[in-house]
Amino acid sequence: MSLADFGRLELELAEVEMPGLMSCRTEFGPSQPFKGARITGSLHMTIQTGVLIETLTALGAEVRWCSCNIFSTQDHAAAAIARDSAAVFAWKGETLQEYWWCTERALDWGPGGGPDLIVDDGGDATLLIHEGVKAEEEFEKTGKLPDPNSTDNAEFQIVLSIIKEGLQTDPKKYHKMKERLVGVSEETTTGVKRLYQMQANGTLLFPAINVNDSVTKSKFDNLYGCRHSLPDGLMRATDVMIAGKVAVVCGYGDVGKGCAAAMKQAGARVIVTEIDPICALQATMEGLQVLTLEDVVSEADIFVTTTGNKDIIMVSDMKKMKNNAIVCNIGHFDNEIDMLGLETYPGVQRITIKPQTDRWVFPETKTGIIVLAEGRLMNLGCATGHPSFVMSCSFTNQVIAQLELWNEKNTGKYKKEVYVLPKHLDEKVAALHLGKLGAKLTKLTKDQADYISVPVEGPYKPAHYRY
Amino acid sequence: MSLADFGRLELELAEVEMPGLMSCRTEFGPSQPFKGARITGSLHMTIQTGVLIETLTALGAEVRWCSCNIFSTQDHAAAAIARDSAAVFAWKGETLQEYWWCTERALDWGPGGGPDLIVDDGGDATLLIHEGVKAEEEFEKTGKLPDPNSTDNAEFQIVLSIIKEGLQTDPKKYHKMKERLVGVSEETTTGVKRLYQMQANGTLLFPAINVNDSVTKSKFDNLYGCRHSLPDGLMRATDVMIAGKVAVVCGYGDVGKGCAAAMKQAGARVIVTEIDPICALQATMEGLQVLTLEDVVSEADIFVTTTGNKDIIMVSDMKKMKNNAIVCNIGHFDNEIDMLGLETYPGVQRITIKPQTDRWVFPETKTGIIVLAEGRLMNLGCATGHPSFVMSCSFTNQVIAQLELWNEKNTGKYKKEVYVLPKHLDEKVAALHLGKLGAKLTKLTKDQADYISVPVEGPYKPAHYRY
Amino acid sequence: MSLADFGRLELELAEVEMPGLMSCRTEFGPSQPFKGARITGSLHMTIQTGVLIETLTALGAEVRWCSCNIFSTQDHAAAAIARDSAAVFAWKGETLQEYWWCTERALDWGPGGGPDLIVDDGGDATLLIHEGVKAEEEFEKTGKLPDPNSTDNAEFQIVLSIIKEGLQTDPKKYHKMKERLVGVSEETTTGVKRLYQMQANGTLLFPAINVNDSVTKSKFDNLYGCRHSLPDGLMRATDVMIAGKVAVVCGYGDVGKGCAAAMKQAGARVIVTEIDPICALQATMEGLQVLTLEDVVSEADIFVTTTGNKDIIMVSDMKKMKNNAIVCNIGHFDNEIDMLGLETYPGVQRITIKPQTDRWVFPETKTGIIVLAEGRLMNLGCATGHPSFVMSCSFTNQVIAQLELWNEKNTGKYKKEVYVLPKHLDEKVAALHLGKLGAKLTKLTKDQADYISVPVEGPYKPAHYRY
Amino acid sequence: MSLADFGRLELELAEVEMPGLMSCRTEFGPSQPFKGARITGSLHMTIQTGVLIETLTALGAEVRWCSCNIFSTQDHAAAAIARDSAAVFAWKGETLQEYWWCTERALDWGPGGGPDLIVDDGGDATLLIHEGVKAEEEFEKTGKLPDPNSTDNAEFQIVLSIIKEGLQTDPKKYHKMKERLVGVSEETTTGVKRLYQMQANGTLLFPAINVNDSVTKSKFDNLYGCRHSLPDGLMRATDVMIAGKVAVVCGYGDVGKGCAAAMKQAGARVIVTEIDPICALQATMEGLQVLTLEDVVSEADIFVTTTGNKDIIMVSDMKKMKNNAIVCNIGHFDNEIDMLGLETYPGVQRITIKPQTDRWVFPETKTGIIVLAEGRLMNLGCATGHPSFVMSCSFTNQVIAQLELWNEKNTGKYKKEVYVLPKHLDEKVAALHLGKLGAKLTKLTKDQADYISVPVEGPYKPAHYRY
Repeated sequence: MSLADFGRLELELAEVEMPGLMSCRTEFGPSQPFKGARITGSLHMTIQTGVLIETLTALGAEVRWCSCNIFSTQDHAAAAIARDSAAVFAWKGETLQEYWWCTERALDWGPGGGPDLIVDDGGDATLLIHEGVKAEEEFEKTGKLPDPNSTDNAEFQIVLSIIKEGLQTDPKKYHKMKERLVGVSEETTTGVKRLYQMQANGTLLFPAINVNDSVTKSKFDNLYGCRHSLPDGLMRATDVMIAGKVAVVCGYGDVGKGCAAAMKQAGARVIVTEIDPICALQATMEGLQVLTLEDVVSEADIFVTTTGNKDIIMVSDMKKMKNNAIVCNIGHFDNEIDMLGLETYPGVQRITIKPQTDRWVFPETKTGIIVLAEGRLMNLGCATGHPSFVMSCSFTNQVIAQLELWNEKNTGKYKKEVYVLPKHLDEKVAALHLGKLGAKLTKLTKDQADYISVPVEGPYKPAHYRY
Repeated sequence: MSLADFGRLELELAEVEMPGLMSCRTEFGPSQPFKGARITGSLHMTIQTGVLIETLTALGAEVRWCSCNIFSTQDHAAAAIARDSAAVFAWKGETLQEYWWCTERALDWGPGGGPDLIVDDGGDATLLIHEGVKAEEEFEKTGKLPDPNSTDNAEFQIVLSIIKEGLQTDPKKYHKMKERLVGVSEETTTGVKRLYQMQANGTLLFPAINVNDSVTKSKFDNLYGCRHSLPDGLMRATDVMIAGKVAVVCGYGDVGKGCAAAMKQAGARVIVTEIDPICALQATMEGLQVLTLEDVVSEADIFVTTTGNKDIIMVSDMKKMKNNAIVCNIGHFDNEIDMLGLETYPGVQRITIKPQTDRWVFPETKTGIIVLAEGRLMNLGCATGHPSFVMSCSFTNQVIAQLELWNEKNTGKYKKEVYVLPKHLDEKVAALHLGKLGAKLTKLTKDQADYISVPVEGPYKPAHYRY
Repeated sequence: MSLADFGRLELELAEVEMPGLMSCRTEFGPSQPFKGARITGSLHMTIQTGVLIETLTALGAEVRWCSCNIFSTQDHAAAAIARDSAAVFAWKGETLQEYWWCTERALDWGPGGGPDLIVDDGGDATLLIHEGVKAEEEFEKTGKLPDPNSTDNAEFQIVLSIIKEGLQTDPKKYHKMKERLVGVSEETTTGVKRLYQMQANGTLLFPAINVNDSVTKSKFDNLYGCRHSLPDGLMRATDVMIAGKVAVVCGYGDVGKGCAAAMKQAGARVIVTEIDPICALQATMEGLQVLTLEDVVSEADIFVTTTGNKDIIMVSDMKKMKNNAIVCNIGHFDNEIDMLGLETYPGVQRITIKPQTDRWVFPETKTGIIVLAEGRLMNLGCATGHPSFVMSCSFTNQVIAQLELWNEKNTGKYKKEVYVLPKHLDEKVAALHLGKLGAKLTKLTKDQADYISVPVEGPYKPAHYRY
Repeated sequence: MSLADFGRLELELAEVEMPGLMSCRTEFGPSQPFKGARITGSLHMTIQTGVLIETLTALGAEVRWCSCNIFSTQDHAAAAIARDSAAVFAWKGETLQEYWWCTERALDWGPGGGPDLIVDDGGDATLLIHEGVKAEEEFEKTGKLPDPNSTDNAEFQIVLSIIKEGLQTDPKKYHKMKERLVGVSEETTTGVKRLYQMQANGTLLFPAINVNDSVTKSKFDNLYGCRHSLPDGLMRATDVMIAGKVAVVCGYGDVGKGCAAAMKQAGARVIVTEIDPICALQATMEGLQVLTLEDVVSEADIFVTTTGNKDIIMVSDMKKMKNNAIVCNIGHFDNEIDMLGLETYPGVQRITIKPQTDRWVFPETKTGIIVLAEGRLMNLGCATGHPSFVMSCSFTNQVIAQLELWNEKNTGKYKKEVYVLPKHLDEKVAALHLGKLGAKLTKLTKDQADYISVPVEGPYKPAHYRY
């Protein structure tokens, strides 16, 4: 709590860099559209998220919040928000046990059930409710409690334990949550993928808005955010000179594109690994070499995973690396890097240089590699995540999505499906951020608009346009 | 015809740079899938198009070809193809009258009607048939011939004249074409826009495949092609030093992104004009200034239109420009620049430095501006268009689209609608181009593929993915 | 001292990144060339400097060290070195009084006089001896003690006080130092400029080697070091998104070139201010706009001074800036920014966000600017200075310069003048750093070497070559 | 001569891009400083050189001109200048025999001896006079005529033949030239190297000004000129897509830096070969891979020599290259590439695609490589050389150097040595080019100037400053 004043100062700085959110406060604040709405958020508890939370409360909402990553909380941000604006369950360096306890706390609004709306990142809050409902159904049918030992996955064991405990106090706890819930807006690729799978399986319990695939989110936050935060994390964690080094970027999606651009611009020689021939061909057109990890594993200095997949860099790869090669993940889960294989490697020695920067020494070679943020998101673990301006784009989409869900809660507009925001709202988010940068838009004449068959005021592009 | 040998040498060089087309010859050539098919093409008659034509003939097709731009034909390419492979109606520097005569010739396969398939670029061949059919219907109903004087548009007057003549010899000429036609594959944004409008109006007469919106077309040809050919055209036309200059790029779509990147990399200071806030915000994230044309018209040195819209740079703008400011268009039609206004400006003087490079001097100021390619596509008029490698991506899509239409001609798979190629074919096109560049793909394991819910062999991305 | 273990871990990491220094240990360590030599250093007490110090001790020297900047000491580096290798007088956040006390301590080797050699950065150790000698001469002649009140310059008052105290205990203290001193090697532009002035005035008391103007120093450390550390400092201090912002870089020398490149590559729009038409023309060739500060003072977001001059950004400029504009200095002294004017501005309010990051609010507008590191070197104050690899280039020059001075101490090779290292040593420094990056040199044949009239083994360029 | 009108139009365009030369006309034209001076130039007869020539004549000189490269003449430039301004002996595609005949013609001003001043590029005019004087001395002493068969070098045989013929008509021809000559200003690295050798040997016959090493020449023309003209030449000669290709740049001096930057920016992956460890380390800092030619000879697509040395790419290398690899030289002489080895390779087949673009097919593999401009300067042979703006920097130095030599002809200021222009003239050249680009300089205050010990009006940097 002693950090709250510092957090408040940084929140004030961030507000100047987040024109989209501040415009929402100006435009919607007076009418208090979220009056009566309870919003639970599960999203990195950073300064930027603080400005999001205070935008939601400025619009009338009550808010409870947890982080979606054990390392990503900025304690001064959490302190300021907890003191001034919302219930916060998050601190930097949670255990997994603590993490899920926080998630459960953020969802628990007391006797009246759960939240009306969820802001989710990665889908853990959504997952907990879906798994809770499933277990309650099973319990109702068969009287069987969930068994944490039924799975090898350590994290899922914790989820089942929490649900089990809940069931024992209130066997309808998650059903009540589900019934109250108007919908969720999901921030990121991984969470969106889970939602589409649930939609495909017919198991999605409430409407969802896919914020990730707003252009002003995935083509900005993922790309330009990582272009900023990858070098930031590398520099804070290791102080290593990037110029002259060989950097391997695994994956050339939006995140990978941002990372490769950052490394190239800082003077590294960049090698990309890809499975998708289209993305691979894009990399070559930018002068990047496309090879497999095994081609370069023993030559490169910096390895970054950006894939959203698992098992990208295995312990067998790490053993072949140069002394003090840096290995980090900016994709999503820590299983992009084989942390389990590393931790359990016989005789491996872990030397913590400083928090989130570990040197792992192999017994055979006495050489070591440097792993950042224990394989979790290095930009959040080692630096402060994405900067405010680009998060303002993402979070303005979140606010608009939450407003959509809440305003349409009784109209039946949104079914138990996954939606993206309409293009005119996407364009609006962009427009709210241009003034801060001194950009001036050209206006179409009516004649020109007719010529290309678009409304004068937009939207200007067909749905399939790729930007 | 004396240029045919030179054309053949350049065709041989281009083949080495067009691995996608050469792979089609290898894969499909033996089975002669186009046996019996008549293909008419209306697409810039360049060396690269020559390799496309000879790929179509290598797969068994008969081909007739015209260009889709009065300046874009490379005469040595036309000569070699005409001598060796196909009927060609195209030369550099056609009049509009000649242009439409060529289009009509390329569509006219004699008594048996028209082509089975059309390869179109900009949609002029498709337009002629649609207008022809419309006129024939009107004539059948009312006996009225089309009246060229019914329109102010000089080019459309010519179209109507040609249809009128046709009607007088064979009042069912275009109906016969329509009946025979299996479909069209369209190359570019402008043509695609026309097709979607016809689909929306219910007037589309045959199936169409939108090749432009294959990722391996619009995100490669439009972007990387223009990044190459804009400086190429500027340098050949004017020898001007780009470094240190202020370049205004009107429009920041795929073409504009390529142009802005090229100018920035060559050392110019780039200013972008945009109507779309999302594209404008992308420009700012790349460090480009976004302003309106009037903000910078009197300060900039080079102006490039890339919009696909009309009336972007008017004669009133040109009057305010610095002496010897360069004005050019790499978007689509010459009406991006107000050529009519310029040509009819009282007292303006046109000094032709060399073909496609004109200095226009205003009487009031005695200062002049330099207009490239008479406002038409400057990369085709002043240089040689896009290089072979990126055209190989585009044209491999064309070959695959033509094969789809032809193979499915009797299955009813394609209705009178506009289609894009399925993603696995798009990925295939990319894959065919990686080997030439020494790129090596990583292979997903079954386990990884399941984890992200894609097939091991692709496609790897959802339809809405933006690359 | 509790930080010593952490410092040691970081020293070990740095060693891997400093191949030039480690090669010196391997090549010269066994023969202990510095046996008997006392070296005093006045140079930022960072991890990289720690590796330099331990290279000097590995070659046989005894070492005493102070920092040359009140904010630049990394306490964990100081602790590890103090514990293991040398006497250290430095901590982060010294007062000016403390700073000069440290400098005096580092020079004072007890009864036997001062050091044999000085490693200087900015020339403060050299200055203290020169001023000391001057005062002692005056005292000897006239009996007059130096009068701190004879100057307005607060820092020079402290210098005079220290000399005055010294004089009262030992009126020959600085003379003894001067007599023992073999020479100084100077690290940076500012210090070098002072040395050349003393040489011109005939007041230089001992030989000096100008390390700054080794190519492998000024064209690497100044350029690539700042390209790395400017964004590092900005991100750590403010978390601000650089993309989309307008950054003004004052000065386009080596430091300015590195800063402008970094800002451009991070997606900012860069404007340069320059007095030198040649440097200004270079900036334009890279697509940068060259304007005066007053042209842009109210539009830009980030201001960086890199000039080595004073009065670059005055308080009257700062008042015109946008709210939360960032002002920082990476040149040399804090007087590049008018800190005095800011601190004494009537009614100005200073809000410390965190150490080295202050928001200064003007009473008239209630808007504020953010000043980094109190106007001192922001890369050292807000981040960790230049990364190890590039410092290895600089510091290998230092080691070689110290060896030269020491080995030639009795030969008369070096007079009381300023020297640069010969080109073959400069080339050697570069060569020692190539292997780490996987670079392979081509070898000249004898025939080729004769053809261009250079020795096969170098040096390869004339003295005036600019790289 | 039919091309003269076209040449004049392009000269007029170029004038707008050459503000330095036009300023010289304005500043010096009225006083006609070259009144009575005969100037012979041996320098690529391009449009830009045309503006130089007409600047010299505008200042009162009489001029005779030849080119310094058999392919570099632009015939329309030569025609316009020959018609309007000066005697020109140059055309595109001279034989070596013709080349030296032209050089001799340009030096021969009739009975009164030779020129007063020479503008030289590569030093051929200077060489001819020096060799002529040497032969005349030998002849006077021994009566021996030079024997062309005394050398294996085909080009030097021609030189000797010409001198021999001259001797037979006038045995004092070159002595008379020497006596009249006030001095030479030399344009390029190669010529300068020859001059310094003659100075070192004591054989230099007249004063020389080294224009190449003006900052505004070597750091602009060599660097930014080649950055422009390398891709220009590649595109005009081959239309090849540069993006995605592997480009090997041999040499990383100013020319190599420009070439590598151009290739990287166009999307190629660039590999540098270097002998100099400092330049090699610079390349790595820019993210370029530094390897030897043999490491990459069979993988790369484009090879560019920039070294100023010989035997860089041998026929044995060319045999290992990929089919249609492009080989070109932008350094100085055609012996950077082993053209002799290629031409005499048994069974090799030369296929001329178009002038200056040849495909050479090896009999063993039937694969071919593409050699540009027969190994001579590809930017002049395949494109139009450097653009006007950057040549204006170089040529303004030439005009100023010629003025210096002429104005000081009787003062003894210049001995038979090699000089560079003083820095204030270098800065003046830069200043003359800033306005055209809209750049605005900051002015030092007197106080600031004193603080850094420079005059308010410059020069601002010490002589050894590297920019």
